[in-house]
Amino acid sequence: MPKLTNRRWCVAELPDDRLDVSHFSLRTVARPKPDDGQVLCRVLWISIDAAGRAWLQADTYRRALQAGDTMPAFAIGQVVESNSEELAVGDIVTGDLGWQEYAAIAPSGLERIVPVRPLSNYLSVLGITGLTAYFGLREVGEARSGETVVVSAAAGATGSVVGQIARRDGCRVVGICGSDEKGAWLTDEMGFDAAVNHRDPDFRKALRAACPDGVHVYFDNVAGATLETVLGAMAPGGRIVCCGVVSQYDTGTPDAGPRGVPGLLILKSLSMRGFLLPTFAARYADGLDTLADWLDDGSIKPVEDVLEGLERAPEGLVGLLNGSNLGKRMVHVADPV
Amino acid sequence: MPKLTNRRWCVAELPDDRLDVSHFSLRTVARPKPDDGQVLCRVLWISIDAAGRAWLQADTYRRALQAGDTMPAFAIGQVVESNSEELAVGDIVTGDLGWQEYAAIAPSGLERIVPVRPLSNYLSVLGITGLTAYFGLREVGEARSGETVVVSAAAGATGSVVGQIARRDGCRVVGICGSDEKGAWLTDEMGFDAAVNHRDPDFRKALRAACPDGVHVYFDNVAGATLETVLGAMAPGGRIVCCGVVSQYDTGTPDAGPRGVPGLLILKSLSMRGFLLPTFAARYADGLDTLADWLDDGSIKPVEDVLEGLERAPEGLVGLLNGSNLGKRMVHVADPV
Repeated sequence: MPKLTNRRWCVAELPDDRLDVSHFSLRTVARPKPDDGQVLCRVLWISIDAAGRAWLQADTYRRALQAGDTMPAFAIGQVVESNSEELAVGDIVTGDLGWQEYAAIAPSGLERIVPVRPLSNYLSVLGITGLTAYFGLREVGEARSGETVVVSAAAGATGSVVGQIARRDGCRVVGICGSDEKGAWLTDEMGFDAAVNHRDPDFRKALRAACPDGVHVYFDNVAGATLETVLGAMAPGGRIVCCGVVSQYDTGTPDAGPRGVPGLLILKSLSMRGFLLPTFAARYADGLDTLADWLDDGSIKPVEDVLEGLERAPEGLVGLLNGSNLGKRMVHVADPV
Repeated sequence: MPKLTNRRWCVAELPDDRLDVSHFSLRTVARPKPDDGQVLCRVLWISIDAAGRAWLQADTYRRALQAGDTMPAFAIGQVVESNSEELAVGDIVTGDLGWQEYAAIAPSGLERIVPVRPLSNYLSVLGITGLTAYFGLREVGEARSGETVVVSAAAGATGSVVGQIARRDGCRVVGICGSDEKGAWLTDEMGFDAAVNHRDPDFRKALRAACPDGVHVYFDNVAGATLETVLGAMAPGGRIVCCGVVSQYDTGTPDAGPRGVPGLLILKSLSMRGFLLPTFAARYADGLDTLADWLDDGSIKPVEDVLEGLERAPEGLVGLLNGSNLGKRMVHVADPV
């Protein structure tokens, strides 16, 4: 029997500059009632994503958040009441359930999954994160065996999967990360060929040394100064996959664009291509099948960074923006029944 | 009988900021003698290209020029002495002959042409300019019928051909140029659907009004602030062809990269792709055949801006950088015998 209250994190105040936990407030409200055609979901696992910071900044592919809004988030839930024939009590679903314990929502906003692995895997390798890495590297970047692939935020959710797929596909893999500890983990545990710390004063030299043939594919999760540095190390004909701009989210004063655009793009015949995952929606099932096979054969490992309890969601996001996570960060709220 | 002297323009001093005619000096030197295996070419027509300013600025696909160097330039010449079995006296050739009356050069640096049209056409539509427009628009930009194509420096050498090809291919064509007079010429004489003056204080609004469906393909010859403005007007899935950075050549302080890179690339699934023409070298003959057919059927007109006499080469380049040309600028030095 579900509780009759619902705890939810709301936006208390929009950040002007760096995000802090004080920008959110935890409210206890009445448990929502599903309308006709809706279901009530209990939230089990919440995905913590840097994009959440972008939603607090400006209109993106969704409208900018306002003070008072429930913080949205991709999550896994379980149907506990159903006013729809499409979903039954007990079903496990994914969708934008938000930072809260319960969400009333129409089935059109949900995807039913039949989990055969730990639920957390469906937020990491077998979810948006894994699909973003898979389609971004293979379809947008067209990385080929023998090429050098560089990925930024390499110890993060998407980056750690990108690197593992690239290694599996026969590429030389170089990770850019924000600490020497993460770098050691990438090479020792994740099978990266090299790692470079962007905070190293010799970052530029270290990157070039790690990529003696130049960079054929750069999977960019961060933008900013790191992108500018990698641009200078690209090999002729190289491809830059524009996936995220993490360095630009948590600030009131985004950088100008990287120098070298478009001059270096011309001189080195480079391409930059941005993408949003839904472009590949028709092929998600194929991607997930492949990723599941690779989990089975051990060629990729899920790397999950779990915080326990809904109350930790804000610190989870603030920390993520500061690089405190290793792999896919998520909040465990409840277990299915 | 060729003259025994050679007039040539040398780099007198490298520019720190804006280029001026005083950065060049005209010297009269002995006519060069071709070595074994070389030919002596009389220079007939010199192509004036903005890239010449870039060569004075930094290493590009060629090493930066130094004071004292002969100013290089693509040109049409005629063989007047030959120490090579590959070329005969009287042959018409193209290659990097420089701003001078005579050049001694190996045949490997030359391309023989058998002209059936005015020689000037081989520097405009049937030369590097036309090929750049052709491959850039069709192969890099993949412009399709019904799409909106925007081209900057639209009244310039490459831009005027890009626009005419796009119109022929069934696109809506919008030219960006630097004066209302050029804009009127683009729409009245060149068949562009609309033209926008980037010096207009309402440039951004005017561009959007001219592109109600957004910009599907932007053929960028200029970079800088214009690129930043067009980025904001791109349609989802749009392609930016990075061909030139004219706004950044003639300055000691190049702009930072455009804002919106890579953020807008992601949000709108845009691509930017730089290219250098030699990528398509294996297909030049096909491109030239097609361009010749289009000249024949009237679907494109050559637009040529001819200065008379070698002495006018520096003013030709300085003026080009200030937008004084209409179409392909070239210097007529001599006629073939």
